[in-house]
Amino acid sequence: MSVAVVMGSASDAPVMEGTSRCCGTSTCPTRSVSSRRTGHRRCPRFRPEGGGNGRKVLIAGAGGAAHLAGVLAAVTPLPVIGVPIAVGELGGLDSLLAMVQMPKGVPVATVAVNGAGNAGLLAVRILALADERLAGGSDRHRDEMAAKVRKADEEIQIRFST
Amino acid sequence: MSVAVVMGSASDAPVMEGTSRCCGTSTCPTRSVSSRRTGHRRCPRFRPEGGGNGRKVLIAGAGGAAHLAGVLAAVTPLPVIGVPIAVGELGGLDSLLAMVQMPKGVPVATVAVNGAGNAGLLAVRILALADERLAGGSDRHRDEMAAKVRKADEEIQIRFST
Amino acid sequence: MSVAVVMGSASDAPVMEGTSRCCGTSTCPTRSVSSRRTGHRRCPRFRPEGGGNGRKVLIAGAGGAAHLAGVLAAVTPLPVIGVPIAVGELGGLDSLLAMVQMPKGVPVATVAVNGAGNAGLLAVRILALADERLAGGSDRHRDEMAAKVRKADEEIQIRFST
Amino acid sequence: MSVAVVMGSASDAPVMEGTSRCCGTSTCPTRSVSSRRTGHRRCPRFRPEGGGNGRKVLIAGAGGAAHLAGVLAAVTPLPVIGVPIAVGELGGLDSLLAMVQMPKGVPVATVAVNGAGNAGLLAVRILALADERLAGGSDRHRDEMAAKVRKADEEIQIRFST
Amino acid sequence: MSVAVVMGSASDAPVMEGTSRCCGTSTCPTRSVSSRRTGHRRCPRFRPEGGGNGRKVLIAGAGGAAHLAGVLAAVTPLPVIGVPIAVGELGGLDSLLAMVQMPKGVPVATVAVNGAGNAGLLAVRILALADERLAGGSDRHRDEMAAKVRKADEEIQIRFST
Amino acid sequence: MSVAVVMGSASDAPVMEGTSRCCGTSTCPTRSVSSRRTGHRRCPRFRPEGGGNGRKVLIAGAGGAAHLAGVLAAVTPLPVIGVPIAVGELGGLDSLLAMVQMPKGVPVATVAVNGAGNAGLLAVRILALADERLAGGSDRHRDEMAAKVRKADEEIQIRFST
Amino acid sequence: MSVAVVMGSASDAPVMEGTSRCCGTSTCPTRSVSSRRTGHRRCPRFRPEGGGNGRKVLIAGAGGAAHLAGVLAAVTPLPVIGVPIAVGELGGLDSLLAMVQMPKGVPVATVAVNGAGNAGLLAVRILALADERLAGGSDRHRDEMAAKVRKADEEIQIRFST
Amino acid sequence: MSVAVVMGSASDAPVMEGTSRCCGTSTCPTRSVSSRRTGHRRCPRFRPEGGGNGRKVLIAGAGGAAHLAGVLAAVTPLPVIGVPIAVGELGGLDSLLAMVQMPKGVPVATVAVNGAGNAGLLAVRILALADERLAGGSDRHRDEMAAKVRKADEEIQIRFST
Repeated sequence: MSVAVVMGSASDAPVMEGTSRCCGTSTCPTRSVSSRRTGHRRCPRFRPEGGGNGRKVLIAGAGGAAHLAGVLAAVTPLPVIGVPIAVGELGGLDSLLAMVQMPKGVPVATVAVNGAGNAGLLAVRILALADERLAGGSDRHRDEMAAKVRKADEEIQIRFST
Repeated sequence: MSVAVVMGSASDAPVMEGTSRCCGTSTCPTRSVSSRRTGHRRCPRFRPEGGGNGRKVLIAGAGGAAHLAGVLAAVTPLPVIGVPIAVGELGGLDSLLAMVQMPKGVPVATVAVNGAGNAGLLAVRILALADERLAGGSDRHRDEMAAKVRKADEEIQIRFST
Repeated sequence: MSVAVVMGSASDAPVMEGTSRCCGTSTCPTRSVSSRRTGHRRCPRFRPEGGGNGRKVLIAGAGGAAHLAGVLAAVTPLPVIGVPIAVGELGGLDSLLAMVQMPKGVPVATVAVNGAGNAGLLAVRILALADERLAGGSDRHRDEMAAKVRKADEEIQIRFST
Repeated sequence: MSVAVVMGSASDAPVMEGTSRCCGTSTCPTRSVSSRRTGHRRCPRFRPEGGGNGRKVLIAGAGGAAHLAGVLAAVTPLPVIGVPIAVGELGGLDSLLAMVQMPKGVPVATVAVNGAGNAGLLAVRILALADERLAGGSDRHRDEMAAKVRKADEEIQIRFST
Repeated sequence: MSVAVVMGSASDAPVMEGTSRCCGTSTCPTRSVSSRRTGHRRCPRFRPEGGGNGRKVLIAGAGGAAHLAGVLAAVTPLPVIGVPIAVGELGGLDSLLAMVQMPKGVPVATVAVNGAGNAGLLAVRILALADERLAGGSDRHRDEMAAKVRKADEEIQIRFST
Repeated sequence: MSVAVVMGSASDAPVMEGTSRCCGTSTCPTRSVSSRRTGHRRCPRFRPEGGGNGRKVLIAGAGGAAHLAGVLAAVTPLPVIGVPIAVGELGGLDSLLAMVQMPKGVPVATVAVNGAGNAGLLAVRILALADERLAGGSDRHRDEMAAKVRKADEEIQIRFST
Repeated sequence: MSVAVVMGSASDAPVMEGTSRCCGTSTCPTRSVSSRRTGHRRCPRFRPEGGGNGRKVLIAGAGGAAHLAGVLAAVTPLPVIGVPIAVGELGGLDSLLAMVQMPKGVPVATVAVNGAGNAGLLAVRILALADERLAGGSDRHRDEMAAKVRKADEEIQIRFST
Repeated sequence: MSVAVVMGSASDAPVMEGTSRCCGTSTCPTRSVSSRRTGHRRCPRFRPEGGGNGRKVLIAGAGGAAHLAGVLAAVTPLPVIGVPIAVGELGGLDSLLAMVQMPKGVPVATVAVNGAGNAGLLAVRILALADERLAGGSDRHRDEMAAKVRKADEEIQIRFST
């Protein structure tokens, strides 16, 4: 049971690497498919059969007129998470609207512009519904984050009180 | 195993009813929590224990500076789906940005402005990962939709060819 | 030699009818394909072979996260004209950005929001490069339009001078 | 009687330091609370009892889907000033809308994007309603600012007249 | 001790009436000044002297290039709350930006587009810092609102469960 | 000495009639030129020679990709005032940006979206620099407006005090 | 007869220097008034009396919630040209809307964001209506610009043909 | 049979060079015309006569209030492709809207902001309708692109699997 990371272009890789860092202990085999430019022919048909190769959640990152997540959501019954990537001059507003404003029938779970990390955490939350160990990993991640916030808090208390 | 629909205000109900229509055969007990206005005190702590009362996926609809989904995502380890609702004069752009642009650590699976239907379908896709019958319901829904598209297609062929 | 009008949803038909009105004397057989919702399986592979059934220019209208034109531009070597259609609350800005901001390699000739008429006129300009009679029809259309402007001008002179 | 500065993340500190610089002679003890990421559990319940520890005005800075000010405004009866902080690619428009577009019943006094300085000055204006000395400090600040403007004016006269 | 409501134009009155409704039991004498169009000559110099006529908080509503709140904030040391009013075609985004993006030195406490009610509630929060009775009124208002939310909640439970 | 009102399309006339109403006592002969659609061939070359037919100030109203004012500013040395007209779905933001963002060398004096009245008042201010009588008319217009504001103010005082 | 350049803040000077460069041979004495921050008390009352010190056209540059041009247009009967200056994170969209969207009765002739050069050229066009020599200077400026374009054209022909 | 590249200003050349690179084997003689600033007098009347000098498709790049493509589309019956170029502070949104939102009767085939490469590819698709060899070149370009995508895909597989 795992996550597949797909991206619209090789240039999306630096942003999308944030996804696997946030998946914590879960394995995140990825696959880059520049689907738009090759006519979607190489776009894998992700099926929920499970097994060694079975993906459960798809994460798709793309920029500009970012169609990749919507195209995947139309060809698979699996949950698809979309990461709008900021490219060019419009600050990612184009990517965000092209990804989130899907018509009824084709849902894409969209996260923030360049929010690849949250895409990974969302995938873990989904998979943890059926896998107790992932839920434990997710809790550990939250505890570590809370500890970091406490430490940053103390440093700011010192900095602002001087 | 079920979905909880939460909304920021009673005025969000007409939009959010689209959610339960799209959940198809799955039961969708709902709970309205105007969390912002009552200091979050009545905001239920959704836990993934399951059981008769156990929610698995939360769907939160809210408008304007739409914080509800983000607040829920911070207090529960469950997947949270956000529905930005268009209220007032800015066309829902405020709701969309306030819901999707979450900081790292608190993922919200955002759908389109007023996209309550897709929120329901996304919840079913997530629950279907662990429940075969829901997967079947989801496939039936897709088949019905494809049939509708074929019918609309034929009507348009006639209309445009005259 | 002809134009194919494709649309993302049956609800786009009222806007897209403006296309065929503007194609003037050229025949415009149309085909509605709700490509996103049926997994692109029914999306015809438009080829430039010509012949009785040969399309030369594709016009695609869609709203929201409007992927249709981009998907067609990736699967066909023909020129694809995109008509962003305003649906929902964001005034078509989402449709426009999702259609025009295509990555390098997949060009979509985008016209104004709801600009189906200009999509038809653009198709005629393209086809007229190889067909003298269409060029003549295009000139006639411009002459008629100029006459209308002269008439409107005279009426405004009278209205503003009183 | 004092001001509390709260921020959504430690990375907001460089912007929020502008607040204490503008509070002039008033003491500004601060407290960083990354409230969203730790489930609001560590978010202090600011009460207006006064006394040595009593806060009178809260200033909350946050970026992206900036919920912090709204959450505080829901849990305290004190005036809450919000500073939208520009993070990421959308220039702070997301932070601004997520902070200012609050539903009726939960007011947030929002200042400009990254406008931490004005947040401090606004807090002093509010506190000066009950504390004559603060009013005097506020007047001194205005006099100093007017003097600076006169000086800048003279320099520009020279620069533009040459 | 009271609040003054100022508006940029008589056409702003229907929106600004929401302010006095939200001030609850506190008296809200108002004053309309169409300051921009008469060269600010009739704009009253609000001073914090108090007394029978003494205003403590100013609330300014204006639309379009909404300067009124900023102009008042420059001529008075009192806290100024700004209500951006949606007029014309741009949905109030122009009013919001023209009101909130003030330069350092002139703070305006901006609320949501057409958010006159929250402006009144914010004024009461500010005045309650020095007036115990207003604090009580504010608490009563919150209790009433919480009761309304509970009632709406019950109705939605019934509606969604059928 | 007079003003010419030009418009991009006959459908702009209802908005542009506001211009002549605001020119007060000055004569405003107008001329509608749908310049874009007829290749600019009928676009009159406005020259500053004066005389019975001599225009001094041009006012151009247009919607969408509103080029008319910029085209006139490039072919005449006269001051050109632009009125962006809201057409279609984008609220006039397209018209405003297409009119005001002119490159260096071709100035267009742009007023608000649909602000035809202010375009007329601006033209009178410009012409009044050389014509004392127009200055008098402009002062009278301001006095009438101030009287109206005083009257509206009194009505609002009564309305808000009850 | 001359032009006055006013700016909202000393930091606007680098942009506003573009104005005087574009006034060509006409003298442009300038005056910086940081009007908002000093309560408009030092804002000169520009009157159209003429004479050695008489300003005929005012040019006002300001950023953010850019009120300066509108305030001047309300206190003077002279034509006021506004230059929205991009400051902070929103790319000048805030300055543009705060300057151009003036209510009826107070016209501001707005140019592009940071378009100080065009403000100068527009002022010369206005003054040239009454001063033949300025008209000549304006024509010379256009001739020089046309020559530059021809030269750039030749260079590009060479560059693109290799 | 060829393509003409026209640009609004010499500063647009670096972006527009992307056009000729994407035209592949087709010859692309270019012509820079700063049409707005010289009153359109030097704007060549492109006619479809063909012959050695005959242009078939026009590509126009411009920034800001980008009128060039629309002006060309009004004076020629040929297909005009518009490239909005990002200049200044608004990220090209102004250029995009000023180019794409053309009124009915004057179609401009608009591509992405700074999308000069796709403009070239679109021109080749149009010309290939009548020229078999260009179709072959276009297919070769797609094959090369597909090969590049495969290579990038492999590299990402390695990078993400380590």
